[in-house]
Amino acid sequence: MNKDELTQTFIHHIGPQEVDCSGYMSLTALGSAILNTAGDAAEKHNFGMNFLLKEGLTWVVSRLSISIDKLPKMYDVIKIETWIKNYGRVFTIRNFKIYNSKREEICKASSQWAVIDLKTRRPFDLRNKPEWQQYATEESRGVEDPIGISAISGELISEHRVRFSDIDFNQHTNSMKYAEWMLDSYSPDTLKNRSITQFDINYMHEALYGQNIKIVRSENENQSLFNLTDNDNFSVCRAAIRWRL
Amino acid sequence: MNKDELTQTFIHHIGPQEVDCSGYMSLTALGSAILNTAGDAAEKHNFGMNFLLKEGLTWVVSRLSISIDKLPKMYDVIKIETWIKNYGRVFTIRNFKIYNSKREEICKASSQWAVIDLKTRRPFDLRNKPEWQQYATEESRGVEDPIGISAISGELISEHRVRFSDIDFNQHTNSMKYAEWMLDSYSPDTLKNRSITQFDINYMHEALYGQNIKIVRSENENQSLFNLTDNDNFSVCRAAIRWRL
Repeated sequence: MNKDELTQTFIHHIGPQEVDCSGYMSLTALGSAILNTAGDAAEKHNFGMNFLLKEGLTWVVSRLSISIDKLPKMYDVIKIETWIKNYGRVFTIRNFKIYNSKREEICKASSQWAVIDLKTRRPFDLRNKPEWQQYATEESRGVEDPIGISAISGELISEHRVRFSDIDFNQHTNSMKYAEWMLDSYSPDTLKNRSITQFDINYMHEALYGQNIKIVRSENENQSLFNLTDNDNFSVCRAAIRWRL
Repeated sequence: MNKDELTQTFIHHIGPQEVDCSGYMSLTALGSAILNTAGDAAEKHNFGMNFLLKEGLTWVVSRLSISIDKLPKMYDVIKIETWIKNYGRVFTIRNFKIYNSKREEICKASSQWAVIDLKTRRPFDLRNKPEWQQYATEESRGVEDPIGISAISGELISEHRVRFSDIDFNQHTNSMKYAEWMLDSYSPDTLKNRSITQFDINYMHEALYGQNIKIVRSENENQSLFNLTDNDNFSVCRAAIRWRL
C-alpha cells in the first residue's frame, strides 16, 4: 500500500450544538470529531469496531493530545487528516491534522490506542494481527506523541455522579465526557476569557454509571491539571489544559 | 415558488456520540438533528439565524413534538425532510419526516417557532415579514401540530445546576439539554427496557447558567410527565414522554 492511501481525510461540518458559549467549537466536540475520525478511518481499513466486536475485542483510547492554533466556528467546514504513526506490541499511535476551509492547519492531535479482550478485559497482543502493521507510516509529521501525566495534588473542586447521558454504546462513560466534567468546573464567564492551546488526557480506569467522580484541580497562570477519582480513590483519568497567554 | 422547492431534505450520518447505551440514536441527538435541520432549511431560504441576528432578532422554538416508529443506529444514514406548515402572527409551524436508508418513514416531528426581538425580549409580529409567507405550504401531511402540556403535580425526582456545557452560542441552555436532564432521572437499565414512542416539550422560560433546576416527574405505565422549575419556581419547560407498551 502506498503512503497516500495510508493517509485518510474526512470532512466535518460544525453544527450549532458543537459550539460552546464562545461560538467556537467546544473542546468536547473537537475531541469527539477526532475520535470519530479514528473510528471511520479504521472502519475503512477493515479493522474498525465492527470488525473487532465480532472477534470479542474492542479499541480503547488510552491517551489523547490536542494542540489548538485556531478553533473553527459554527457552520464552518473542517478537513481532518489522519494516519497511523506506529504499531507496537500493546499500543498504536494515530495522528491527526485539522485544516479550515482556507486550508490553514488549525489543530494537531495524537492518540494512543490499545485493543482489549472483552472477556478478560486484558490488553490484546497486537503482534497477533501482523497484517495491520502495513498501515503504520512510521511518520509523526511534526505531531508529538501524547504524553503521560503525573499524579497531582490539588483542590477538590467539584463532584459528578455518572448519569445516563454520560454512558455510550460501550456501556461506559464516553471518552469526551471526562473533559466536559473538567470544563464544567469553570463558569462560562471564565472560559469566555480563556482559550485552550493544548489539551492532554490519560485514560486510566472506566467511570461507570452511578459512580461519584471527584474532580481535583491544580492551577497556575498558564496551566490547569486535573485528577478525576472514583469511589475507591482510583484515578479514572488525569488531564492537563494549557491556556493561551 | 412551487411546492417541491418548499420541501427541503438533509442527510445526516449518526455518529458514535449520538447513540446512547442502547446503541440507538438518543432522543437528544434526534432532537438536535431535527432542530439543526430547521436552522439549515431557514438559512437556505434566507431567513435563518445569520439573517435574523443582523436585524436584532432571533428564532426561538416554543414547542417540539417527536413521534418515533423506529430509531436509527450508530453509523446509519437518515434523510430528514422539512417544510413550513403555516405562518401566523406570532408563531410558525415547521414539520419533519425522517426516513432510514431503506426509505422507510421512521419518525415524524413538528415544531412551533417564534421570532424574538433581542433588545426587548418580546415576540416580533411576523406580519412585519410578509415576504416569508410564501414559504408556508399549508400542509400538515399527517403530522400533528405540537401540543400544549398542562401543569402537573408530581414528585421532585432530581435537581440539576445549569453548567458550562449546557450553555450554547445564544448564552442560554441548549434546547435539547432539558430532555437530557429528564432522561438522566432514569438509570441506563431502566431506559434499556423502555423505548420512547412520543416526546412532547413546551419551552416556557430560559434556564440560565448557575440556576438550580428542579425536576418534577409524574408517571403511569405508558406515560411520564415532567415539570422543570427554576429558582423562582417558574416552569422553564414541561414535557411528556409516551413509552412503547
